[in-house]
Amino acid sequence: MPKIKQLTDGVRSGNIRSLAKAITLIESRNTSHSKDAAELLDNLLPDTENAIRIGISGVPGVGKSTFIEALGMNLLRQGHKIAILAVDPSSQLSGGSILGDKTRMEELAREKNAFIRPSPAGKTLGGVARKTRETMLLCEAAGYDVIIIETVGVGQSEIAVASMVDFFLLLQLSNAGDELQGIKKGVMEIADAILINKAEGENRPRAELARQQYENALHLLKPKSHNWQVPALLCSALHNQGIDEIWQMIRDFVTTMKQHNEFENKRRLQATDWMWTLVMDDLKDMFLRDKNVAVMIDQVQTGVSQGTTTPSAAARRLLDAFRRH
Amino acid sequence: MPKIKQLTDGVRSGNIRSLAKAITLIESRNTSHSKDAAELLDNLLPDTENAIRIGISGVPGVGKSTFIEALGMNLLRQGHKIAILAVDPSSQLSGGSILGDKTRMEELAREKNAFIRPSPAGKTLGGVARKTRETMLLCEAAGYDVIIIETVGVGQSEIAVASMVDFFLLLQLSNAGDELQGIKKGVMEIADAILINKAEGENRPRAELARQQYENALHLLKPKSHNWQVPALLCSALHNQGIDEIWQMIRDFVTTMKQHNEFENKRRLQATDWMWTLVMDDLKDMFLRDKNVAVMIDQVQTGVSQGTTTPSAAARRLLDAFRRH
Repeated sequence: MPKIKQLTDGVRSGNIRSLAKAITLIESRNTSHSKDAAELLDNLLPDTENAIRIGISGVPGVGKSTFIEALGMNLLRQGHKIAILAVDPSSQLSGGSILGDKTRMEELAREKNAFIRPSPAGKTLGGVARKTRETMLLCEAAGYDVIIIETVGVGQSEIAVASMVDFFLLLQLSNAGDELQGIKKGVMEIADAILINKAEGENRPRAELARQQYENALHLLKPKSHNWQVPALLCSALHNQGIDEIWQMIRDFVTTMKQHNEFENKRRLQATDWMWTLVMDDLKDMFLRDKNVAVMIDQVQTGVSQGTTTPSAAARRLLDAFRRH
Repeated sequence: MPKIKQLTDGVRSGNIRSLAKAITLIESRNTSHSKDAAELLDNLLPDTENAIRIGISGVPGVGKSTFIEALGMNLLRQGHKIAILAVDPSSQLSGGSILGDKTRMEELAREKNAFIRPSPAGKTLGGVARKTRETMLLCEAAGYDVIIIETVGVGQSEIAVASMVDFFLLLQLSNAGDELQGIKKGVMEIADAILINKAEGENRPRAELARQQYENALHLLKPKSHNWQVPALLCSALHNQGIDEIWQMIRDFVTTMKQHNEFENKRRLQATDWMWTLVMDDLKDMFLRDKNVAVMIDQVQTGVSQGTTTPSAAARRLLDAFRRH
């Protein structure tokens, strides 16, 4: 009990060791730690929500680290404290996290007002997202006022990140070939801005062409908000060109959304959705760990996928087994 | 018991009264009927899955009924038996179903080899989709070999329909104004083809321009399958122009998907997903109807949306209450 009180105070005062310890507690798989973690989060709740939360995605090679380093250094110069987190459910499989790797952001890693944390390990996206979301709250309580959450360009993790941030930025390359880089399912629709990086040197005309094509495509999509037309922009993170404009755009977005109450509404909706996600995840978990269900699940699933039983009959059998307690 | 046996035989022989009676049983909200309905579906399972399942969507005014009537009449002439179902969760609210209304498809409604059924009533999309899916299976058992499921152009119901069909066709208008009709979130990505209707008379050049713009946009999206580039086509349902070409395209799609095992795989995946949807829906229902949960849910949700409690703490409280049995 006094330990958690102490940790709460430590995080609140911005102590980096306390923050690291608190994150370790959140990430712990030891179920006896989860009560402590919950208490810590509840204590710190009043100190959260004062940061701008930015999601950044793009395929490997698009220059995410270089961009985050450039944006981050500019923000530090303006007096911000920034935290860089990552969501990458594949990091465990690939034998180590690529995202949020300090060696990829050498400059930022040396700055005391920048906190970099790699993706938590986890077998499921749900688990990884949960830990990242809670880590974000800890960082906010510790006084970081810009939170950047990076993820790789794969559908589900992008949706998970979009559901916890205020602004979602999609980095795209203008490809070397004739073809524009394909836009993955649904991602175009969660982006609040599309940014074509590496718009430098002889690549610039190609980048400008790509920008125009994305802009045309964006105009075909109904906007998420009537108050925001998703822009397609250019930058060169390597040469620190266009970075200030992007930060200005994010600030404009926040101002506009706040004026129309969309900022607050989105956060409230995200919180309620998140609660239901947690409830449903745990319910599913409870269901799958149920002894009666566990003994029959493989057989039932096989029956459905081979077409020997209907999905409804299968669901009914499983639910009857679950209720039999 | 003998009643269900009789109904099974009736449906299997294509008897229209038996089919109507079976659908009424499926749609019944009387929980004592659900065991009979389940038995009926299990009996008929071996007779299903031989039809082509087509989803059709588009906003009101795009000409869905005219198109379905034109396609349907062409198919009847070729010897097909067609069933037209609908998914419209708003039909109850709007005081009557607009979709699947026989008066909108006068010619088809007179044909004995065409079966038209309006959207089942229901408060939730899940409930409506469940009944339509099961009705589809009954129609297949009754010998209908082309099933058309129409829905309105609103996101969630389109996704529900896409999850139960082999081919999803999106009808679009070329708008009167300068602007192309906006494409709703995600819908472009579930379409297997985009069709611009009313490409007739002086509207034809505008329709062709729209077609090209959609085609360009489609090329920017990563294809759902490497074996299928989603086409944008023109037709005039009113003048029966381009309808045969669309049917030929659907047949090409089916042939190609079958050659690459994608057809069968998609159906198996749909069946497993559907089982999990049913399980999770019922689990959620069980959770919400739980006495301990019910007494606290409003207060907890308000706490989350006002930011006085974290989503995790709220979820934990609800789950603890649920477990307390």
